[in-house]
Amino acid sequence: MREITFRTIGGGDVSIFAADGEKILDVARKANVAIDAPCSGNGSCGKCRVKILSGAVSADETRHITPSEYSSGWRLACGSEVCENALIEVPDIASAYRSRMKTADLSSPEEIAVFERIIKDLSSAGLSFGCGVSSFILSLGPPSLTDTMPDNERLIRSVSAKLGVSRNKVRLPFFCLKKLPGLMREGGFSLRVVAEKREDSLEVLDLLSPEDKLPVCGVAVDIGTTTVSALLADLENGRILSKASSGNGQIRFGADVINRIIEQSREGGTKKLLDAIVSETLLPLIDTMCRDAGVPKDRIYRVTAAGNTTMEHLLLGITAEHLRMEPYIPAFFTAEPFDPALIGIALSPSAGLRLAPNVGSYVGGDITAGTLASMIWNEDGPEMLIDLGTNGEIVFGGRDFLITCACSAGPAFEGSDISCGMRATDGAIEDCRIDSETMEPSFSVIGGEGTLPVGICGSGIIDIVAGLFRAGIIDGRGRFSREGGRIMRDEYGVGRYVLADAEESGSGREISINEVDIDNFIRAKGAVFSAMMTVITSLGYSPSAMERIFVAGGIGGGINIKNAVSVGMFPDIPENKYTYIGNSSLTGAYAALVSSSAAGMLEAVAAQMTYVELSTEPGYMDSFVAACFLPHTDASLFPSGGAL
Amino acid sequence: MREITFRTIGGGDVSIFAADGEKILDVARKANVAIDAPCSGNGSCGKCRVKILSGAVSADETRHITPSEYSSGWRLACGSEVCENALIEVPDIASAYRSRMKTADLSSPEEIAVFERIIKDLSSAGLSFGCGVSSFILSLGPPSLTDTMPDNERLIRSVSAKLGVSRNKVRLPFFCLKKLPGLMREGGFSLRVVAEKREDSLEVLDLLSPEDKLPVCGVAVDIGTTTVSALLADLENGRILSKASSGNGQIRFGADVINRIIEQSREGGTKKLLDAIVSETLLPLIDTMCRDAGVPKDRIYRVTAAGNTTMEHLLLGITAEHLRMEPYIPAFFTAEPFDPALIGIALSPSAGLRLAPNVGSYVGGDITAGTLASMIWNEDGPEMLIDLGTNGEIVFGGRDFLITCACSAGPAFEGSDISCGMRATDGAIEDCRIDSETMEPSFSVIGGEGTLPVGICGSGIIDIVAGLFRAGIIDGRGRFSREGGRIMRDEYGVGRYVLADAEESGSGREISINEVDIDNFIRAKGAVFSAMMTVITSLGYSPSAMERIFVAGGIGGGINIKNAVSVGMFPDIPENKYTYIGNSSLTGAYAALVSSSAAGMLEAVAAQMTYVELSTEPGYMDSFVAACFLPHTDASLFPSGGAL
Repeated sequence: MREITFRTIGGGDVSIFAADGEKILDVARKANVAIDAPCSGNGSCGKCRVKILSGAVSADETRHITPSEYSSGWRLACGSEVCENALIEVPDIASAYRSRMKTADLSSPEEIAVFERIIKDLSSAGLSFGCGVSSFILSLGPPSLTDTMPDNERLIRSVSAKLGVSRNKVRLPFFCLKKLPGLMREGGFSLRVVAEKREDSLEVLDLLSPEDKLPVCGVAVDIGTTTVSALLADLENGRILSKASSGNGQIRFGADVINRIIEQSREGGTKKLLDAIVSETLLPLIDTMCRDAGVPKDRIYRVTAAGNTTMEHLLLGITAEHLRMEPYIPAFFTAEPFDPALIGIALSPSAGLRLAPNVGSYVGGDITAGTLASMIWNEDGPEMLIDLGTNGEIVFGGRDFLITCACSAGPAFEGSDISCGMRATDGAIEDCRIDSETMEPSFSVIGGEGTLPVGICGSGIIDIVAGLFRAGIIDGRGRFSREGGRIMRDEYGVGRYVLADAEESGSGREISINEVDIDNFIRAKGAVFSAMMTVITSLGYSPSAMERIFVAGGIGGGINIKNAVSVGMFPDIPENKYTYIGNSSLTGAYAALVSSSAAGMLEAVAAQMTYVELSTEPGYMDSFVAACFLPHTDASLFPSGGAL
Repeated sequence: MREITFRTIGGGDVSIFAADGEKILDVARKANVAIDAPCSGNGSCGKCRVKILSGAVSADETRHITPSEYSSGWRLACGSEVCENALIEVPDIASAYRSRMKTADLSSPEEIAVFERIIKDLSSAGLSFGCGVSSFILSLGPPSLTDTMPDNERLIRSVSAKLGVSRNKVRLPFFCLKKLPGLMREGGFSLRVVAEKREDSLEVLDLLSPEDKLPVCGVAVDIGTTTVSALLADLENGRILSKASSGNGQIRFGADVINRIIEQSREGGTKKLLDAIVSETLLPLIDTMCRDAGVPKDRIYRVTAAGNTTMEHLLLGITAEHLRMEPYIPAFFTAEPFDPALIGIALSPSAGLRLAPNVGSYVGGDITAGTLASMIWNEDGPEMLIDLGTNGEIVFGGRDFLITCACSAGPAFEGSDISCGMRATDGAIEDCRIDSETMEPSFSVIGGEGTLPVGICGSGIIDIVAGLFRAGIIDGRGRFSREGGRIMRDEYGVGRYVLADAEESGSGREISINEVDIDNFIRAKGAVFSAMMTVITSLGYSPSAMERIFVAGGIGGGINIKNAVSVGMFPDIPENKYTYIGNSSLTGAYAALVSSSAAGMLEAVAAQMTYVELSTEPGYMDSFVAACFLPHTDASLFPSGGAL
């Protein structure tokens, strides 16, 4: 056996014994050291870079590693094996998915405003705030020899009188009955009762001391394939108490849903994937939010979670295997609310977790929740929601119909599939302009003044490609057509544009975008554009018929619509018809959490959505191929293209 | 530290380290060695006898131990302390409460008949068999590219169509959703579904392989203060699959409810008492029944339990402290059904445990269940149910009214409070005649031909006292008025009647009944008689107005009514008006388990019962004092007394 020590930035050293021939990536997984492996270790993505500080590994796979990097000790964890004791550095950029969070703006006034606005929007559509959960002080008369009613009866009658619900429709859960006798007597026969009123019934959710003033909370969470975002809200007034976000811990089992499903179907895989999302991701997020808000976890009574169909299956520990294989059958679209303790999330014993409903194998609860938040279901004219996550999903329609589809854009917009790509966290280049004359870039980096760039997030990639194209640096096929300055070529002649060299970057590695990256991006934007057009034209509409297009997704501080149009990602209609609405899945989950009528509308909206499978849609493939060009092979679709 | 080794008959040796000065009883409790301590170790009952085989203990308390016993090594565990290493024998009679079960007749045709009869009785009162639980095979069509319904939807629609329940009223619990995708495909899209149909809704309780033919089960259990009895039944046809009974593991914390409540209110007491009834008593009983019936525990979907008010509180791990102190307030009379896993009984994940409702602090679910089984609620004339358990409880009335009370008879009828008393298990003298001439006894012993007596159970005590009185051996006050033969006196002149000397007994100790025992018995029977009379006369009735009196309780193979009347325990009305109905609490629990209408009637009967607190009832105390005589101080109440 050899001793392998992983050194993580800020995380210290972790040592583990391993046998000769074991893959470094597998050894790291065993040691619970997170190494990004979007391709799940098949050598294709080149993300799982590690640096050998001492000792050695035997490296079979040297794609993605330059000779000079190789001689500095860089290897791919998935392409190297144990051969002697070694000290291995896991670079910060690789662990950024998990260890670093862009918390700076998570409670910015702009973000809070999004959540405040949704309540107003819903209210204008006739959906009121309020999830039926309230807390109140009850003073019960003390028992006596002439008033010997049992404790539970005394409480239930009083609650029933207070809230106007018939006595036999009041439910008192077991753990509340257990604490009732002591609590009643300690509080001088006064109690704080937390209860949820439904149509004609009432459930006591908790019994607390009358001195207890802590808020009664709920959690809304968006479970993205790449990023998980959550907020803690006061159920009684909707106020957001704290927010947090982090990478999805499952990312080490693959960047996309297909690789995750394959991992899940292996021996012990269900538990591994469940642990990765629950123990490694959701529990730390909930702990962080509770600590920030000064609220114990057992004050969380309701959770609303939205994720794509696969994420929801993995979260429940339910096999997603049949989603992957013809005829692509999910175990559920809609699951009944359940106790989150059943998946290892212990909150209040009366907590319930409700999932946003899925509508297709590849259009999930994140999209139905996002549709709720977009309000397009309440409009006459056809409008559109497009969510740019690890995949791209589209909803088109209004009050009378809603059709939806998913396009396999790949994870380019979340920074995967791009050599220097990263999530929209500290260090990411989030917007960029390129001077046509000097070919010099000017960009801003998430994390504020002075933060050095370590990679490029989705919104940055759009800007860079648009800038390169507009400056004539790349042609319609994404090939470099100018030379010199920041344009370099590797030994095989593959061109790249350098945004920051090793000295200028925060990671000590050059930050650049190469022809392979641009090719991946063009296929991604082509998938999005052709999906939008297929949906719009299949119903006989043209893009100009749309009043508004809502763009959602966590791809940066926002998206430069002009640039997105100029690369042919979005239809060429006036910029003011586009609205970037951020993480609409989380907004929708929040709305369903704090408003029972919104939760009801979420179900209704989902039921109204018709899923279109693009892969079997005639014409989609041709449309996709035609869109794999900057801005498009049919330039007439982008009349204003040159003017932008 | 000293090493103390306990040697139990059949249980081997258990060693534990203990400090000088620790009570042997406490050391035994720590070592999980069960020693009977009905008085909870205050030295008053003399039941916790142990024998020092080697080494020594320092014994302060020598009451209940004769000098010759003392010199043979007998001590009271509660009155002895550790002073050096010791090997201590825990005699069989003391462990009989836990280790030995009278299983011989538990599935006798007579007993089975009791359970079959209750279904017929209920049916004649218009209450049908059936608890709504059924199992059936469902064949679902396989999904295809043109039929892509999610697995849960496919199942729910099929179940809903099969049982005629609207689709949105079908509940599928989380664990069933989890196993659905795999099970469906393994079984070729056929499944065995276990479901419970309620008014207009339906809950799926389980999903099984279509090859699975095992029964769908429920458990009924009577939790007595001294004895716990249970049965395993097939919920689909009511058939009894197995039965078991054992002592209540809580007995080492006291014979009566008061001592148990005191123990519960001590540090860690709630858990100790809960463990004693759940881990030490119910789980082994359930295991035994499941093994006997060849059914795994997760096939148990419903549990109905009946116990007195304190037992039900202790079972739920809810404080019973306030039951003991003025104004004597229970936490609940009626508790909602709950998942038995919450108290450590893991059956099917969809299992529910329902308690028979209590109606007073000292009239509990065992009596309401017994009342259901007695059928007196369905009769015109006043009838009576008297349950002789560790206490005596009485229900009097019929269709128009039901009043109930408890009398603190003490545990004499279950063998406690009597020097050679024991539960009605193997070795107990259960009936007895005494020849007036020769003063010789003839008795039968539970356990069949050849079983040597080791003690006297409740029915035996009644017979012996009646026999001694009728033979003129004792007088109306219970004092010995004849001498010689089997009558002995101790050094203080206290008389006793020897049923078996040390050689004739199975325990090597003389079996006798002494004046203290008889005094305890007279107070117990006086409490029962005066309670019966107070209830009857308070409503202006006389005993002769009653059509039938049902005698229930596990006090032996039956009760000799003539003898019970002749000692003044029961009113002097014709013997054929009395019916012994055994464990009516278990019968009632079984009825409520297998019949939803019986369960509903149980609630209705409980709601109709009026609880009378005897201690505040005028005249009760005088009536009790007058009844503490054989047969009674007012001989006119027992006109036929001499003739019996």
